[in-house]
Amino acid sequence: MLADTEICVFDAYGTLYDFGSAVARHRSAIGSSAESLTEMWRSKQIQYTWLRNSMGAYAKFWQVTGEALDYCLAAHGLSDRSIREALMTAYLALEPFPEVPATLAALKRSGMRLAILSNGNPEMLEPMVAASPVSDAFEAILSVESVGVFKPDAKVYRLVEARCGVKPGKVCFLSSNCWDAHGAAHFGFPTVWVNRGGAPDDGLPGTLAAQVKDLSQLPSLLGVS
Amino acid sequence: MLADTEICVFDAYGTLYDFGSAVARHRSAIGSSAESLTEMWRSKQIQYTWLRNSMGAYAKFWQVTGEALDYCLAAHGLSDRSIREALMTAYLALEPFPEVPATLAALKRSGMRLAILSNGNPEMLEPMVAASPVSDAFEAILSVESVGVFKPDAKVYRLVEARCGVKPGKVCFLSSNCWDAHGAAHFGFPTVWVNRGGAPDDGLPGTLAAQVKDLSQLPSLLGVS
Repeated sequence: MLADTEICVFDAYGTLYDFGSAVARHRSAIGSSAESLTEMWRSKQIQYTWLRNSMGAYAKFWQVTGEALDYCLAAHGLSDRSIREALMTAYLALEPFPEVPATLAALKRSGMRLAILSNGNPEMLEPMVAASPVSDAFEAILSVESVGVFKPDAKVYRLVEARCGVKPGKVCFLSSNCWDAHGAAHFGFPTVWVNRGGAPDDGLPGTLAAQVKDLSQLPSLLGVS
Repeated sequence: MLADTEICVFDAYGTLYDFGSAVARHRSAIGSSAESLTEMWRSKQIQYTWLRNSMGAYAKFWQVTGEALDYCLAAHGLSDRSIREALMTAYLALEPFPEVPATLAALKRSGMRLAILSNGNPEMLEPMVAASPVSDAFEAILSVESVGVFKPDAKVYRLVEARCGVKPGKVCFLSSNCWDAHGAAHFGFPTVWVNRGGAPDDGLPGTLAAQVKDLSQLPSLLGVS
């Protein structure tokens, strides 16, 4: 299935770009609850996107990210506005995970096409990619913004064929978010779950094609190394 | 707004019926991770419903509840099948929270109409209500099953007018789940959040009419005590 891949389509946050390390830089300002805060933030942020999908109430990911952070700061009794600003700013300048630049370079050398498909709105996504060392790797940076609904709605995954002209069966989709991986697999993409945290597989629809620990295993998985 | 109420519509799990106390009876069998397990179970269960909504992949709440439990048992390294069976069985025989019988009786005496609107499928919901001391209180036990999608999709909240013939503005909706309360408020129900845990308000669409600590405050809130 993966041997037919024409294009690798990556989730951005948590898959290519490292949210945790950016936030870690602000650990001293946040104090002892830094880890709990950032874990809750990511969790609430994603939950709010699912809830807005069910409510038919799309809003830009940037807004949802801020609303989730406000909840988490309140839950942790943190009212210092400078922490909010620092964390939101950190979200705009994430770095790729260590193995990402070499992996993308190897795939490019083999002629593989590469794209991003993200919940992020273009105003937050495109500057982050442009400022990162892999800015030239992607032929398309696809945002859910154009369909007004978040993952794992099928309208999001359909953007790949609409914009890149590749049938779902020839796409290799990669996400570190298990629910995104299942959503993509349920839609019809051969999908690799980048299980960076070694979590159990979620009990969700969609059968995963493979599971890797990080992206360094991808070229050999696709037979292009 | 609440003064116009013709019918009070309650969420079931966590609002009328106490999930935590039922699971607590099995604490000794589960061991030290009992609290963490049950918290994760409820969280995953609800997340799976939101994800299935986005994927267009409805399944009975009973199935989703079991899939969530399987994830949580794996995440906690628990492989004893008797624990799974005990917890699933516990879910079928939950007790109402202590203040519920007297509250519902007071509302009934005042002529208030009462109903349940739940994610639960009828096979799990109806026996639980029938076996509980408030079995006669409700004119309708409405399940998402008939619309094939979970809360907070508007199709679920529309069931109240369709089945009970009451316009949304004359419904008082009650949920201990903040996201359900926001979903109902966004739909158009005057909504009271039963904030049993004293949590911060979620940053979600929909404006809540009121917030109470438990249901004992409801009759006076509606002016019927």
